[in-house]
Amino acid sequence: MLELTALNEMNEAAFVGALGGVYEKSPWIAERAFRNKGEIVSITALAEAMKREVDAASEAEQLDLITSHPDLAGKAALAGELTAESTDEQARAGLGSLTPEEMERFTRLNGKYREKFGFPFILAVRNASKHIILGAFETRLHNSRNAELAAALAQVHKIAWMRIRLLVRHSPRGKLTCHVLDTARGTPAAHMRVTLRRLDQTSGAWEELLATHTNADGRLDGPALAGADMRDGEYEFTFGVGEYFSIAGVPTAGTPFLREVPLRFGIDNPEAHYHVPLLCSPWSYSTYRGS
Amino acid sequence: MLELTALNEMNEAAFVGALGGVYEKSPWIAERAFRNKGEIVSITALAEAMKREVDAASEAEQLDLITSHPDLAGKAALAGELTAESTDEQARAGLGSLTPEEMERFTRLNGKYREKFGFPFILAVRNASKHIILGAFETRLHNSRNAELAAALAQVHKIAWMRIRLLVRHSPRGKLTCHVLDTARGTPAAHMRVTLRRLDQTSGAWEELLATHTNADGRLDGPALAGADMRDGEYEFTFGVGEYFSIAGVPTAGTPFLREVPLRFGIDNPEAHYHVPLLCSPWSYSTYRGS
Amino acid sequence: MLELTALNEMNEAAFVGALGGVYEKSPWIAERAFRNKGEIVSITALAEAMKREVDAASEAEQLDLITSHPDLAGKAALAGELTAESTDEQARAGLGSLTPEEMERFTRLNGKYREKFGFPFILAVRNASKHIILGAFETRLHNSRNAELAAALAQVHKIAWMRIRLLVRHSPRGKLTCHVLDTARGTPAAHMRVTLRRLDQTSGAWEELLATHTNADGRLDGPALAGADMRDGEYEFTFGVGEYFSIAGVPTAGTPFLREVPLRFGIDNPEAHYHVPLLCSPWSYSTYRGS
Amino acid sequence: MLELTALNEMNEAAFVGALGGVYEKSPWIAERAFRNKGEIVSITALAEAMKREVDAASEAEQLDLITSHPDLAGKAALAGELTAESTDEQARAGLGSLTPEEMERFTRLNGKYREKFGFPFILAVRNASKHIILGAFETRLHNSRNAELAAALAQVHKIAWMRIRLLVRHSPRGKLTCHVLDTARGTPAAHMRVTLRRLDQTSGAWEELLATHTNADGRLDGPALAGADMRDGEYEFTFGVGEYFSIAGVPTAGTPFLREVPLRFGIDNPEAHYHVPLLCSPWSYSTYRGS
Repeated sequence: MLELTALNEMNEAAFVGALGGVYEKSPWIAERAFRNKGEIVSITALAEAMKREVDAASEAEQLDLITSHPDLAGKAALAGELTAESTDEQARAGLGSLTPEEMERFTRLNGKYREKFGFPFILAVRNASKHIILGAFETRLHNSRNAELAAALAQVHKIAWMRIRLLVRHSPRGKLTCHVLDTARGTPAAHMRVTLRRLDQTSGAWEELLATHTNADGRLDGPALAGADMRDGEYEFTFGVGEYFSIAGVPTAGTPFLREVPLRFGIDNPEAHYHVPLLCSPWSYSTYRGS
Repeated sequence: MLELTALNEMNEAAFVGALGGVYEKSPWIAERAFRNKGEIVSITALAEAMKREVDAASEAEQLDLITSHPDLAGKAALAGELTAESTDEQARAGLGSLTPEEMERFTRLNGKYREKFGFPFILAVRNASKHIILGAFETRLHNSRNAELAAALAQVHKIAWMRIRLLVRHSPRGKLTCHVLDTARGTPAAHMRVTLRRLDQTSGAWEELLATHTNADGRLDGPALAGADMRDGEYEFTFGVGEYFSIAGVPTAGTPFLREVPLRFGIDNPEAHYHVPLLCSPWSYSTYRGS
Repeated sequence: MLELTALNEMNEAAFVGALGGVYEKSPWIAERAFRNKGEIVSITALAEAMKREVDAASEAEQLDLITSHPDLAGKAALAGELTAESTDEQARAGLGSLTPEEMERFTRLNGKYREKFGFPFILAVRNASKHIILGAFETRLHNSRNAELAAALAQVHKIAWMRIRLLVRHSPRGKLTCHVLDTARGTPAAHMRVTLRRLDQTSGAWEELLATHTNADGRLDGPALAGADMRDGEYEFTFGVGEYFSIAGVPTAGTPFLREVPLRFGIDNPEAHYHVPLLCSPWSYSTYRGS
Repeated sequence: MLELTALNEMNEAAFVGALGGVYEKSPWIAERAFRNKGEIVSITALAEAMKREVDAASEAEQLDLITSHPDLAGKAALAGELTAESTDEQARAGLGSLTPEEMERFTRLNGKYREKFGFPFILAVRNASKHIILGAFETRLHNSRNAELAAALAQVHKIAWMRIRLLVRHSPRGKLTCHVLDTARGTPAAHMRVTLRRLDQTSGAWEELLATHTNADGRLDGPALAGADMRDGEYEFTFGVGEYFSIAGVPTAGTPFLREVPLRFGIDNPEAHYHVPLLCSPWSYSTYRGS
């Protein structure tokens, strides 16, 4: 995995060698980004720098970029002629093991889409599934060509971001924090049990990272994750809400409506601040991406 | 398990024989309830009928009822002299296997509580844990005697309710429903994948009960549970929120903030209507006990 | 105001005479809609029928439609050469009384936008303000041409919808309902005081339409608005939340955090069902557009 | 109005002279609080110090305190024999101008309550209304004596707190802050228009205190209120939600569901930190008392 420091020391050839595949078959984007770049302090900044070159490019160049993408489960995929990145992405979405019926459906949809819009259907499939891809295909076939050009570019940037995340080690500026509010009594929820787990993508198991309690202000003492521990992926906070209200003497049912409350969420950008609060009464709760 | 029809046909002796233990060592409550009862159409109505007798009793009788309860992990428990119901309840809360330090702590707290208030500490422990019991002990020791008398009676009713649930089969009038709203677009969330699972209390495994999709109005076609399937216990809905927004073309992150959203909740009264909605955007969600 | 029944009896000439101006200077849309139409049962259906013709038109026709729109506060406006509809809309947004500085800013932004995209900036300004228009101008100047073509068409449809609302009387199928949930206790909020008021657009005064209480299920007996009373505009529910919790004996502060809770919301489509619930504890509340 | 510094310099006689009426006809509470007090740094600390003496008093003393309170709209009130504090409080709740029917209802409820419980019905009526008082009367008549003793003491402390607030100037440690989150896009809501108004209790008019915009983090630059400006009373934030989403290009309706969103809330303790956030999409919002 590339370090940001190494990236900053590269000459143009090395830089384009490293990042030329971030945008599918379009090394010109890495080239232009190299020429305009200052010091790259984060993968967030790197992604923005490359995106800026795409957004500043001509409409013809943008269309070229779009048409450089392969069909999903298309001829190139069958013939083993995809780029390494696309091969990996399509495999992860399960496109390597389609039934004949599914294959036929993909072929038909790819054809219909290209016929209507003149360019391939693009979807960032790394975290997708056959179901999502087929569903999105049907939805987007109803769009106007302008709307689809805009949607295709948005997907292209999303693919690029996920490729960058795999190639370059992120800076340690991100963190995950939490806050629990008791909306039945209008106070911070003090001394509530909290655990944090991460989904191991390989084994499918949930690994415990933290088992603690909120402090008097309803917060954790320090971030739940920070620095190198802050990685993209799927996480779950679990909160001992039933226990908290039982101890506090707030009336709850024999079998409480809320006992263990799980909040499952994804971290997309490990360099960002994710604030994931829980607002709860014995009978309701909510959460949101805070900052 | 007793059927409501059987209960309605009983004479007083049989009725008191069946329900005399619902309130600890206080068969007079079942006796009075028998005399005042009409047809009992539900366990909810049965619990209310018995509760009414307690609430209408004199203060001395209520205090007698309270003092009929054993200490938690107290002498009677050690000597094996608890009622069958109390034995079961205390065992389920793990009070049968205390360390010497925990045992000493219980003895000390029981003593302190009795000294301050003149009656035993009462907590419905069937779904509790040592941690909850000790926490509640500390909280409630700070209360006034009046507040504790009120709290003790509330716990006594909760214990009675959970005993009734074990003794008498509930009527099939309850149901569980669900509704999903898309708060990013102000519409019902149509065609979202939903599964429902129940925690098997014996094995600790989650058993799948339902795997379906919301309809065009964001609802399930018919209740998720009804009639005999509606049982008290712990449940979890899981919603394919990430998939839903991906298919709809609403922008989400490469690793979406919300992918699978679990709502874990308890059903206390299988005769009630539990409406458990999900309000969600790609970045926030909330739920509550609705009706 | 046109009745739907009258509209359904019209021949093509009359129909186009009535609705030719719904899409700016583009009577061909009304013409095509007439040919493809069945019975028009609602203004919602009418708007959809006309929108379908635009969406099915060629890209060249769509671009023509877009370029038929005048600049906001542009030369045509100054010269009094706008269509009646545009004149009214621009006046309502305050574009008839710009300061010289504002006028210069509009002229500069109109020029910049046309230069970048080749068509005029379109925004449905009927309910907008100078501040919104100038803010949206700055935001949208950063978009790609494809994104702007899609945005322009969306605005064109929004303008058409608001013109239809003024021209044709809506069918009486819409309604407004309400539901109040007590999230502190997990029950419907029964017997809570509710009032509903509508903003009189002419006088700026809030006119009371309803003063009532929720029933035992936390709902109103019947819809708050229905049929002809259901009109587009701005409304406000006010809920006696503080009073409700005081009477219920739920602890609140001397000066309660929530006393009168106002929910102010707009009805855009008087033929739709607006469900506007309140979920509240003494310390929190939320609302959403339900169905 | 008394300053905390002046209070700290008082001898016992002066202290009891100043605060003897905080608890109705019970100067012994001020006396004991004086003996046990350290430096009083806030009215919050003062209220807690006095409350501690009540909670530590014997049950007989607590019952004396309760029975020292007059009936609401009772004989003492009619005869003009209330303490100055009670006179003011009962007048503010409209108890000085009852109809004969209302007077009869109060007399009947006072009698029924005293008969059942043996002490007067106590409610902190300063911010209440006839409707609240009569409603609470009916609710509380169903309680047990123990529950009512606990409820009466809670009301006694609430009355004391509101009397302290009128007598002693609060310390300037409190503040009001705000945060706006865009739950449609998962970001802080930057540059949203916010105004803050306070209800003038005398004139009934809403006085504008602040008109500003959120910063890039969705917060205000500095607290909305702090120090001496932080006073108990009723406040309203108004947020330009419709404008915000229109400028951002997020699709909204012609008549947006949310345009101006008001959050009306009370500040009970001017020495506390009130955090009042808004979480909003174009179709939903929520708020809560944060910290």
